[in-house]
Amino acid sequence: MRWWIVRCLLFVSLACLPLMQAADSTSSTDVPTYTADGKMLFPTNYRSWVFLTSGVDMSYSPNPMNMGHSVFDNVFVNPDSYKAFLQTGTWPDKTMLVLEVRKAGDKASINKSGHFQTPELMGREVHVRDDTRFEGKWAFFGFDTDEPSKMVPKEAACYSCHQAHAAVDTTFVQFYPTLIGLAKDKGTLSANYLNDEKALASGQKEGKK
Amino acid sequence: MRWWIVRCLLFVSLACLPLMQAADSTSSTDVPTYTADGKMLFPTNYRSWVFLTSGVDMSYSPNPMNMGHSVFDNVFVNPDSYKAFLQTGTWPDKTMLVLEVRKAGDKASINKSGHFQTPELMGREVHVRDDTRFEGKWAFFGFDTDEPSKMVPKEAACYSCHQAHAAVDTTFVQFYPTLIGLAKDKGTLSANYLNDEKALASGQKEGKK
Repeated sequence: MRWWIVRCLLFVSLACLPLMQAADSTSSTDVPTYTADGKMLFPTNYRSWVFLTSGVDMSYSPNPMNMGHSVFDNVFVNPDSYKAFLQTGTWPDKTMLVLEVRKAGDKASINKSGHFQTPELMGREVHVRDDTRFEGKWAFFGFDTDEPSKMVPKEAACYSCHQAHAAVDTTFVQFYPTLIGLAKDKGTLSANYLNDEKALASGQKEGKK
Repeated sequence: MRWWIVRCLLFVSLACLPLMQAADSTSSTDVPTYTADGKMLFPTNYRSWVFLTSGVDMSYSPNPMNMGHSVFDNVFVNPDSYKAFLQTGTWPDKTMLVLEVRKAGDKASINKSGHFQTPELMGREVHVRDDTRFEGKWAFFGFDTDEPSKMVPKEAACYSCHQAHAAVDTTFVQFYPTLIGLAKDKGTLSANYLNDEKALASGQKEGKK
């Protein structure tokens, strides 16, 4: 659930815009909530949730997009699911992960180098587990505003990529610094991820020969 | 409360190490707690607090230190103080801001470029407001471990720098993307910060001539 994926999701959600109906309601609850026609309400209070990690200019593609500025992505999870993960090493039903993408700044106030986060939001998406609702349990929803949004179609690359490479279930816990060790200890790392790691280690070994 | 400051603080806390007494207790409460001899207990549950921002390789010095790798800094605040800030645009007594510094990674799993956060902690500090305890209300404490730590002496550069440049009270709200606009709306921006901004704008104008 990273920047490369978000770009794909933003593209998909923009393409879906004409299909979206106007809606008034937003959500400030910590459980996934939907409109009658299946759109998800945006969990507007996610900035009070538990922070998992941030990255800068991350890309899963060897040819990252150049936008002329850096971007941060922040990941948050609803508190009850975080508590459950600490106990079990995996996510329970009704987990919501929010990815927030923000424009980075460099020179401002007394900052001379490096990057900080600016108030300029560039996109948000929710990766949600809802067992009885979604085939494969998980779904993505992209949000350009706080208005309810349609589900990203199952054919989008984010689903197959998360399925193929996620460290825990379909989530990229490999990039959540306080949780990856815990998942390892609890034995919840996915077979796909462990195979990826084995292949990476073997490639590095080959490279050193 | 940024990387350059942290380096100063880490130096100070390392220098203070021989003076520190062994102690067993750590804190998981959301209010500042101290040992009988004035050390602060580390708020070990800060990762469940409210995330304010992260930065990467930030430096307030024109000659940043080169460590051969990038670093992230994450800032968290205790939830009650965050709620108070949303109401008032400033921090109440007993506010605790935790700065966490983490080593950045670049190539791992399926990530090809940019930076992500790794499990490797490089330091943590607490900036705490405790009106009846500290002259000037605020104090810094650097933590290399979860053990109680002595206050950073008032003569350290972080105090004067925060006093001279912080956007709200002695805190660098100018780098907290969801709070700076709120502080502006509430009229809580400091005179020093407003002067800095005026000087910056005037310098940029001069530069364009």
